[in-house]
Amino acid sequence: MAKPILYSYWRSSCSWRVRIALSLKNIDYEYRPIDLFSEESKVSIFQFTLRIPRFCQNDPEFVKHNPAKKVPTLVINGLSLTESLAIIEYLDEAFPDPPFLPKELDQRAYSRAIALHIVSSIQPLQAISIHKMLNEKEKRYGDFWCNHFVNRGFKALEELLIKYSGKYCVGNQLTIADINLPSIIYNAKIYNVDMTQYPTIVRIGETLNEHPKFKPAHPDLQPDAPKTTKADM
Amino acid sequence: MAKPILYSYWRSSCSWRVRIALSLKNIDYEYRPIDLFSEESKVSIFQFTLRIPRFCQNDPEFVKHNPAKKVPTLVINGLSLTESLAIIEYLDEAFPDPPFLPKELDQRAYSRAIALHIVSSIQPLQAISIHKMLNEKEKRYGDFWCNHFVNRGFKALEELLIKYSGKYCVGNQLTIADINLPSIIYNAKIYNVDMTQYPTIVRIGETLNEHPKFKPAHPDLQPDAPKTTKADM
Repeated sequence: MAKPILYSYWRSSCSWRVRIALSLKNIDYEYRPIDLFSEESKVSIFQFTLRIPRFCQNDPEFVKHNPAKKVPTLVINGLSLTESLAIIEYLDEAFPDPPFLPKELDQRAYSRAIALHIVSSIQPLQAISIHKMLNEKEKRYGDFWCNHFVNRGFKALEELLIKYSGKYCVGNQLTIADINLPSIIYNAKIYNVDMTQYPTIVRIGETLNEHPKFKPAHPDLQPDAPKTTKADM
Repeated sequence: MAKPILYSYWRSSCSWRVRIALSLKNIDYEYRPIDLFSEESKVSIFQFTLRIPRFCQNDPEFVKHNPAKKVPTLVINGLSLTESLAIIEYLDEAFPDPPFLPKELDQRAYSRAIALHIVSSIQPLQAISIHKMLNEKEKRYGDFWCNHFVNRGFKALEELLIKYSGKYCVGNQLTIADINLPSIIYNAKIYNVDMTQYPTIVRIGETLNEHPKFKPAHPDLQPDAPKTTKADM
């Protein structure tokens, strides 16, 4: 198998999920940063070739792999794969060990439901682009909006986790649900969500933070992360 | 198997997806409407018992099945299942015929990617509650917002479908991707999206509209649909 290529952006929640999945499956890959806020790819500055070239969303090489121009995009086994959860399900089917889904149908459904609650009910409403657009519309409205929707989603998530969690989101096996949790907790903190309301989310998040396969996927450790991350908000 | 119960709202995109999936799998079910815009359940008016009682989101019977208080919720085989795509994947695993996913891993990934693009990148940003909240913030801003994000999503969706579609979204087999398409086209029309820009989306949408298993899932045919649907906007 040729070395897979992951098109990623350091702070993209969806890219983070796929980095965790690749790490859990022990798949080595090449990291290619897509700068979501640049109109122009940068492979060199003056005469110096950049150690990490940064591609923009419109770069023809990137668009060839994903006409939707979104990260993450994973080039693997000759395929160009898009949408974080679809990529994660593909990785689980192509590389079954360790599994991302329990064997029992009900536990599989609960794991996917928690993943989808994060991916479709919380994340899209507090994405970086949404936050920016609403703050430009009215000063601090984006801040209010993101805080509001993360709280709305976390209230439901806390209830779901009280019902299903053990050590991890669903029982004691690490599943697709856990892969989606760290990025949304990270964002909740950026949007000043009072996490003391959500002790189950916090507990599982702390367990995942200590997991050796989760650590290398953290945004701050990516080659395109700025040195002082909070200043980028 | 006891008759499954679907908690649904006639105009909810996510409920519509599950109605299509149940119809395709030939699963008979009881329809229980959840009125997303009412604070109070109505099982009777004066001394008359309603033919179709309407439950509100806070109804204890409903909350017992889904603490996140969202539709759709499917009670089946003794389980309470939530999140439309998780329910659809469960139905596909528990009732394999006809399948919602192709056999080939790449085609499965493309089918899931199209489904997820609709479910996580388009639908959440134009949900009824978002439209209402932004129109209350500033007259017609919700209209602008929903039109903008459906167009943004449809540009990418059209590109994906040009790449992957045959008769259906991915080749000539009906998949999980198709199950998610009708509701987002229906909403696009409500938000005055110019559909002539998206001929591939339109073509597949028309094919699905004619599918006998898709027809009964249409919002206008649900027991909780008002007689004149457009007036409800």
